[in-house]
Amino acid sequence: MKRLLAEVNISEGRDPELIDQVLLALKAHEVDVIDVDSEPNHNRTVFTYIGEPQAVLEGTKALVAKAVALIDMTRHTGSHPRMGAVDVVPFVPVKEVSIEEALEVAKSFGRFLGDLGVPVYYYEEAATRPERSSLVKIRKGQYEALAEKMTREEWRPDEGPFEFVPKSGATVTGVRFPLVAFNVNLKTEDLAVCKKIVQAIRGATGGYTHVRAIALPLEGEGLTQISMNLVNYEKTPIHRVFETIKSEAASYGILVQGTELVGPVPLMALKDVLEHYLQTHSFSMDQIYS
Amino acid sequence: MKRLLAEVNISEGRDPELIDQVLLALKAHEVDVIDVDSEPNHNRTVFTYIGEPQAVLEGTKALVAKAVALIDMTRHTGSHPRMGAVDVVPFVPVKEVSIEEALEVAKSFGRFLGDLGVPVYYYEEAATRPERSSLVKIRKGQYEALAEKMTREEWRPDEGPFEFVPKSGATVTGVRFPLVAFNVNLKTEDLAVCKKIVQAIRGATGGYTHVRAIALPLEGEGLTQISMNLVNYEKTPIHRVFETIKSEAASYGILVQGTELVGPVPLMALKDVLEHYLQTHSFSMDQIYS
Repeated sequence: MKRLLAEVNISEGRDPELIDQVLLALKAHEVDVIDVDSEPNHNRTVFTYIGEPQAVLEGTKALVAKAVALIDMTRHTGSHPRMGAVDVVPFVPVKEVSIEEALEVAKSFGRFLGDLGVPVYYYEEAATRPERSSLVKIRKGQYEALAEKMTREEWRPDEGPFEFVPKSGATVTGVRFPLVAFNVNLKTEDLAVCKKIVQAIRGATGGYTHVRAIALPLEGEGLTQISMNLVNYEKTPIHRVFETIKSEAASYGILVQGTELVGPVPLMALKDVLEHYLQTHSFSMDQIYS
Repeated sequence: MKRLLAEVNISEGRDPELIDQVLLALKAHEVDVIDVDSEPNHNRTVFTYIGEPQAVLEGTKALVAKAVALIDMTRHTGSHPRMGAVDVVPFVPVKEVSIEEALEVAKSFGRFLGDLGVPVYYYEEAATRPERSSLVKIRKGQYEALAEKMTREEWRPDEGPFEFVPKSGATVTGVRFPLVAFNVNLKTEDLAVCKKIVQAIRGATGGYTHVRAIALPLEGEGLTQISMNLVNYEKTPIHRVFETIKSEAASYGILVQGTELVGPVPLMALKDVLEHYLQTHSFSMDQIYS
C-alpha cells in the first residue's frame, strides 16, 4: 500500500478551538494522524499524518482551506520563523511512492492553494529555481518582509497571485525525504570538544553529506547534546553517524550518556539500524508486525 | 488499537485450491494476513494474521470451519508432527491485549470448535492441567495414537466429544507469547564448540530462561548455525542473546558471519534491540510510522 506523509505547519498554536476545527477538517478524510504538536510560544501547530497519496492530498486541501479561512497573519506573533497562515507543507514519500508521484501531489496542492488566493512557493525537490530549494532562503525576512519582497520579479510565486496578501501571507510547499531528528547526549561539559565532533560528522564541514548538526550544552545536567537532523537516512543511516560520534568522543575519553529519537521516525530508518547491529542482511519489512 | 495475532496450522500443504478456499473464508473478516506458508513436504499450511480480537476470533472460526469440512485426516501423510485437520491454533497478544483477554478469545474459539464436533485441548497459557502446557506432550504419538489415547480419562478433551473423531482428529489451541525465530551463523565448522555455545545460552542448560537453541552445520558453507526460538523477547531480548553468543564465540576466535530473523517478528521485539544499540531510553512505539 502506498504511503505518503504530510506535515502541515500552521501559524496558530494558542487557540485550541481553532486548532480543533482545522483538525476536524482533516479527519473527514482517510488519513492516519500521527501527531498534532502545538507550541504556544512559537504560536504554531504541526499536523503530521500519513495515508494513500490521494487521501493525503484531499485531507491537506481540507485542512489548509480551514486554516486559511480562520487565521489572520496581520495579528500573528510567535517566536518561530513564519511567513504565512499555512506556513510550510512538506510531502514526504514513505512507502512505494516515488519522488515524482509526491511531486504531483505537491503541485496539485499548490495549484489548489493558489486558486484560494494564497501565493505559493515550491521548495526542496519541487523547487522551480535553485535559490528556492531551501526553506530558510525563501522565508528570509519572514512575513514582515513579504510585502517588499513581492515587489520583485525574483519573488514571483509559483502559484497564486503575484501580490502581497496580508491575511494569509505566503505558503511554501514541496517534497522532501523523511527527516530523522536524532540527539546524542555526551557525558561532558566541554563544548569546544563537542563542536569538533559536530565538525567531524556534519556535511557542511567534511562529514556526512546528509547530516545537519549543532552542539548544545544541557544546562545543569553536566551533559552536552549533539542535536542532529538526518535528512536522508538511506544514504546516511542513523547507526553510521552514531558510531562515528562514539568513536570521535572516545578519542577524548568521552562516553555517550544516551540518545533521543525525536518525533516521528520512519520504520525503514529503524530497519537499517537493526540490520547493522544484528548483522542480519536478508530481513524484509514484510516480516514486521505490530 | 488492540492487536491480537493468530497462527493457524492446518494439515494440508499440497492442494492449492483447498488452501485458497480456507484463506477466502478468513479474508471475509477484517484481519491483516501477514503470511500464508504451505510446506508440501510437511503437508501443512500456516496462516498468520492479526487484527482486533473480535475480528480475529470470527476470522479464525470461519477459516477453521472450512478446514474441518474439507480435510480428511484418515488420508493425511506428511513429515511434520500433527494430530488434527486443524492442528494447532495459538493466539498471541501483540498490542494492548492482556493474556486474560487473549484467553477469552482462545476459549471462545475452543467452544466453537468443540460444538463442531472436534475434540479440543488447551495448551500453554490456556492449559487446564500442567501436563497440557506443552504442545509436544499433548501431540505425542500424533494422530495415529489418538484413538488409543482417547480411551483414557487422562486425555479427556477440554472441549468437544470425548471420543476419537477419525476425520478431524483433535485440535490444540491456547495463548502464547510472540515467538522470535533467530539464527546466528558462525564462521566455523567446529560443531563441538557451537554446541558449547548453545549450552551457554539456552535455558535448559543454565543459559537464558526463554531461549530454545540447537547447533546445526550449514553444509558446504563452512558455517555452523545457532538456530533459536526466543519464546519471551521481553524477558530475554534478542540483543542480549546475540551479544552473549558473540562473546562466547569470540573466546574461541570465532566471528559471526550474519544472522537471520525468520518469519514474522513483532515490532516491540525490534524496538528493544534498537533502544539497546542506539542507547535511546525514552523512545515510544507511537513515534514509528510506516
